[in-house]
This record gives sequence, C-alpha cells and structure tokens, in this order.
Amino acid sequence: EDSKVSLHNVADPYDADPRRHPALQPRSLKPYNAETPLKILADNFFTPSDLFFVRNHLPVPEIDLASYEVEIEGVGVKSMKLNLEQLKKFPKFTITSTVQCSGNRRSEMTKVKPVKGLDWGQAAIGNASWTGVRLRDVLLAAGLKDDQPGVEHVQFEGLDTDPSMHPYGASIPIEKAMDPKGDVLLAFEMNGEPLTRDHGFPVRVIVPGVTGARNVKWLGKVIVSGKESDSHWQQNDYKGFSPSTDWDTVDFSSAPAIQELPVISAICDPVQGDKVKPVDGKIPLRGYAWSGGGRKIVRVDVTWDQGKTWGVAKLEQESNKHPYHWGWTLWTMEVPVPPNAKKLEVWVKAVDSTYNTQPEGFANIWNLRGVLSNAYHRVTIDINTGKK
Amino acid sequence: EDSKVSLHNVADPYDADPRRHPALQPRSLKPYNAETPLKILADNFFTPSDLFFVRNHLPVPEIDLASYEVEIEGVGVKSMKLNLEQLKKFPKFTITSTVQCSGNRRSEMTKVKPVKGLDWGQAAIGNASWTGVRLRDVLLAAGLKDDQPGVEHVQFEGLDTDPSMHPYGASIPIEKAMDPKGDVLLAFEMNGEPLTRDHGFPVRVIVPGVTGARNVKWLGKVIVSGKESDSHWQQNDYKGFSPSTDWDTVDFSSAPAIQELPVISAICDPVQGDKVKPVDGKIPLRGYAWSGGGRKIVRVDVTWDQGKTWGVAKLEQESNKHPYHWGWTLWTMEVPVPPNAKKLEVWVKAVDSTYNTQPEGFANIWNLRGVLSNAYHRVTIDINTGKK
Ligand SMILES: [Mo]
Ligand SMILES: [Mo]
Repeated sequence: EDSKVSLHNVADPYDADPRRHPALQPRSLKPYNAETPLKILADNFFTPSDLFFVRNHLPVPEIDLASYEVEIEGVGVKSMKLNLEQLKKFPKFTITSTVQCSGNRRSEMTKVKPVKGLDWGQAAIGNASWTGVRLRDVLLAAGLKDDQPGVEHVQFEGLDTDPSMHPYGASIPIEKAMDPKGDVLLAFEMNGEPLTRDHGFPVRVIVPGVTGARNVKWLGKVIVSGKESDSHWQQNDYKGFSPSTDWDTVDFSSAPAIQELPVISAICDPVQGDKVKPVDGKIPLRGYAWSGGGRKIVRVDVTWDQGKTWGVAKLEQESNKHPYHWGWTLWTMEVPVPPNAKKLEVWVKAVDSTYNTQPEGFANIWNLRGVLSNAYHRVTIDINTGKK
Repeated sequence: EDSKVSLHNVADPYDADPRRHPALQPRSLKPYNAETPLKILADNFFTPSDLFFVRNHLPVPEIDLASYEVEIEGVGVKSMKLNLEQLKKFPKFTITSTVQCSGNRRSEMTKVKPVKGLDWGQAAIGNASWTGVRLRDVLLAAGLKDDQPGVEHVQFEGLDTDPSMHPYGASIPIEKAMDPKGDVLLAFEMNGEPLTRDHGFPVRVIVPGVTGARNVKWLGKVIVSGKESDSHWQQNDYKGFSPSTDWDTVDFSSAPAIQELPVISAICDPVQGDKVKPVDGKIPLRGYAWSGGGRKIVRVDVTWDQGKTWGVAKLEQESNKHPYHWGWTLWTMEVPVPPNAKKLEVWVKAVDSTYNTQPEGFANIWNLRGVLSNAYHRVTIDINTGKK
C-alpha cells in the first residue's frame, strides 16, 4: 500500500489534484494555475469560489482532516499544535478581502519585452468573504507579546511540497501579523463554505491587502521569527526591480519581498476585440479596481479619447475606511461613441485613498519577473455600427 | 493701547510677521509662503529650520507663552486646557517627519494647463526632527477610549485667524490620531530647538505621513468629533479631482480630503539650466524621494536617455520600517554623459514599500487645484564641454 502511494506520487504528483470548473482558463496545468474568464469577473462583487483564480506552486496536497494540525512555534511563543476544532474555539471573524497574484496582468507587460512567469491576463484576482480566526489571537494565546524583542516576521509553511519535500513558504512582517486591525486570518471558509482543495483546505492564511503569495494555503506551520521565510518565493521571486535589471545583473537580496500591492484597475467587459453595438450612442464598461494595504479606491477614471477627456466611473464598494478597506471596488461607466467610429480605445486608471494612481505604461515599470504590472489598462472595442 | 493694536491690525495684519531667512524663495508675501532654494535642499538630511519651506494661510499669530493654552474638547473627552508646562508632563517623543505641501511641484503641473494656487517649485517639502507629546496620550488622559462610538475625526484649530476671526482648521481620521504607532505629536521643538514663529510656536501638530495642511500650527484647539473639520481647507480645498473636472463642474463634497500623500521624488542639484562640467564623463545628481503614510522608499530610478536605461540611485534614509517610515530619503546618482552632448535630460521616479510608483506625466493627473503633482521630475542640464 505504501509502495503504491509512493509509485503513484513518482508517476505524477499532480494526479491527486481536484477537478476544476470547466470555465476556468488555465495558464499552466502542473502546477495548476488558472484565471476567471475576464468577461464575467465583474459580474459578482464576491467572486464565486469555483471560478476564483487558482495559483498553485506545487501539487495540491491530500489532507486528512482527522489528522490535520497546524503547528505554532518560534521566538517568544510556546509551541502548540492545533487541530481545526481547537482553532475554531478562537473568536470567529469574517472579512471581505481581495486576493491578487503579484503577476496579474503580466501578459501586458511582456509585450514590451519578454518576462519570466505565467502569462496571466487581467483576472489573476478575485474578491471573497473569508471566515476564520485571527492570527493575532492565536499568537497571543501562544504567549507572544506585542513588540517582543527579536521578532520581526511571521513565517508560514504550506503542506504542499516539492519533490524533495520542501514546503511552499512565505512570511509577513510582524507589524502586519500583530496589528489589532490588520485582520490577518487563519481562514477555514471562503464565501461561507469550507475552503475547497484548490483554495487551501482545510486552513489558509488570509493577509488582507497583501499579495497572494503570502496568503499561504494548506497551512501546516506558523513560525514566529527574527527572519523572513527563506523560501524561494520570499527570497528569489516576487520582488520588483528596475527596468534595466536583467537576469545577468539581478541581485534578489537588493529588493524587498512584495507585501502590499500598488493600486490597479482593469476593464472586464467588453474584452479586447469584442464587437459591441452602442445604445443611445453609448457603450457600458465594467471592471474592477483595488489597492493593497487597506487603501480604498476613491476614484476610477476612464477615457475614450487617449486622455483628452476623462469620465468618472460609478463605484460599488464596501464602507470600510482607509487603511482597512480590504475588498475590491467594482465600477461601471457608459462611454460615448463618436458617430461612425468603427473602433474605440478605452483606458482605465484608479486612484486610491493615498491619491496614488497607476503608471501610464509598462515600459518604465517593466521588470524581469513581470510582477506589479499595474499600468493603465487599455482595450480596443470593435463598434457594431449596424451597417453592413 | 487697544485702539492702537486694532488700528495696526486693520492697517496690515501681516505687520507682526517674523523676519525670515533672506535665502528663502517667496511664492507669496501676505500670507507668507516660501520654499527652500532647491539647489541646497538635498544638502541636509534634516532641513535647517530657518530654511524649511513656510506655508502660512493667514498672518502669523502673536502668542504670549504666559497665557498660552491648548483646549481639548468634544465627543468622549473631558474638556481640558493645557499650558505648555502641563503639556510637557506627558511622555516626550522625538520623531523624524517630512512635511510636504499638497501643492509641492504645482509649477510643473500648471504648464499642462493653468491651475489655481501658489506657484511652488520642488521645495515645498522639508525633513525635520520634531519633539513633543503624543496626541494619543493627551486624548487618553482626557478620557477618550479606543474605538469610542461616535468618534471619527480629530479636528485642530490654529490661533491664526482671518479678518472675521475664523481660525485655520483641519482634521485627521481617528484611526490615525489614536494609532499607538501613528506618532501624531503635539510638537514644541523642531530640530532640537523651540518652534520658530513661522513653524507654529509654541505648539503645532505633526501628523507624520500626512499632508502639511493637517499639521496645524499655533495649535489652539483639539476637538474630538464625529465629523471632519468644516474649514475651507478641509472641505473645499486640498482634494484631488479628475483631469476633466473644472471650476464649473467641481463638487468638492465628491472627493476625500487629502491625508496621506502619494510617492514623489525630485532632482535638487543640478537644477534646470545649470551648466555642469562632467568629471570622468559623469555628472552627479542629488535629490529627495518620499511617500506618505509611513511608506518607505525602496528604490529611486534615474534615466538619462528618456527611459531606455534606468540607473538605480544610492539612498540615504533612516531604518524605520514600513509603514512607520516618516522621514524622506535623499539619493545620489552619477549619470553618464554621452560624448559631445551639449544638453542632458534626466528623469527621476521613486518606488515605495507598496511598490507604488509615480505617474509619468502631468496631463493625466492634472487637477484644477494643482495638488498631488507627483509625476516624474524631468530636468535638462547644460553640459560644459570645456570647449569654446
Ligand atoms: Mo502570486
Ligand atoms: Mo499645503
């Protein structure tokens, strides 16, 4: 029986991956990475779990709830192991949080000059409600004090492992982990249901306002430490560099690991190349906007004439205040179509509660890993003039 | 004697303004507004107090320390009056904080299309060490509780008044005021000396990471409230709008008051039009970079060929961590000069700890008040080729 499992793993560690919704658009199969069809992404303020983008770095682990435990250990804490039942005894919280991959919209940046990474469109992002317990409460219960000397980071290890049994890992700064208003959760529900396997069953970390890579799924271990995670993904990936830094010159130790993400937006519908018939001379656009670090979207600007005129979009968002606004903003806007136009190029940019806004183009933010790809989103729509 | 004072005030309420350093570059005389000479701004990590930019909205009040008191009042607090001696009994803290006017670099934005406001260059910003007591400690002593229902803002009133005796006023969100790590100070020292009259003697508010307008000088009153300050400067000024919003269409209630400022940078030396002789084919540049909300500068990029090549500048900054990095970053970079070049155009942009960066140009961030003017700073240097 042991040898059978082992053989099965050697044969293809991805054989045990779950089935996925057929509408998901894969960017890689092993590991499985896929995004929501862009055109439907703005249909729901809460992205349905089975259509939520999937970012897996490794095979999905097979976890038996009967034996599942998360270990808490490290500097300033008493080592503990908590099963799901024990975890659920902490006060339960539900938050809305957008999760976005650092590489969202990479496919636009790569057109400037090739970058390494999955060819994500604009839908490596989703918004969900997450229920769990606060990491802060768990760490306090393990004896951690606020401002404990020697503590700088909280590391997470997943139960997903590479062929040499190294787990996926990441860390976040202690300031975020212990912020009483930081809302970092050990989450066991997504949109009111137990987590699915692709989204971290039975327990994942939700670090609101922080890039997806730190929202570790299939949580196995929490390590309080003076140091960041030494994982590949914390140290040698998911960092930003100058446009002139290439693979020959890059020094990964020179840049900080991405945590909070910059302000971003996208047009979801129509998508590039859609043929749309104007109604009363107008075309409705829909999309999302979001900013990391709990910064709230305060304005979304849309132009249909290369910036000569900017219209202000109508926003749908929750009422949380800066800097605790974790969820995204959906926006709509009707743009006027000039008479006899056959094509219309539309751009969107968002402004957040710090009045940061997006860079205009990709050339000057280009980076070798194609992360932080948050320039204006530009889409060209074909106009159905009704004429043959 | 009374009638003499009153006559004197009627004659010119600015007669009692202090004398200023002759090197300051005035942008208006009554009220007095002036900036540091740009070329020397990056000479000092701590801007000398007498050369620090001055932003006055009204005449500088004449304050007698013997009778000076700050009043604390409002929702959830016991009304109190504290003189300077009483204020100094609270625990004393010193922080480094950059103060920047919302209109810094307006003179660049106005070239796209005229805006209303003082014609600031790139030096309506400075960095100082500030000593005082924590607003949080004072409010706790007045009985305010964390998360007190009905409390949303802390308003400040200055002792500077307009001809109808309305004071300068502003407010900040309660989340910032009460954040144990927010470092909001009632400050009485700047760079280790008592505040000068132009910088708020005897007590001003320092709201690190937040635009200058909320760092109220000559503090007279602190009001805990469910509402923002109803002052002109909070309600109908210092807000950002879409580039297509003009004075006929603007609705000031539709935009949030500027609090945290977006990421910015500038080249201080050489200044536009300087004639510089390269040394070993290079010209040294110096400047500043800063971001609001305690976000730390993580990289400053400089290009000398319109973005084909970006060099990474050397940074001088304090070690505080995100999101509690209140001070600016000074940067230096040697740029190569192509053989026989007679002019060199250099651009700078900064990246902060959320990986937000600056917009490229002013056209798409233009706004009618000329605030938030944080596009790339572009300077053309004349090259002294040594030839006649
Ligand atoms: Mo990611
Ligand atoms: Mo200002």
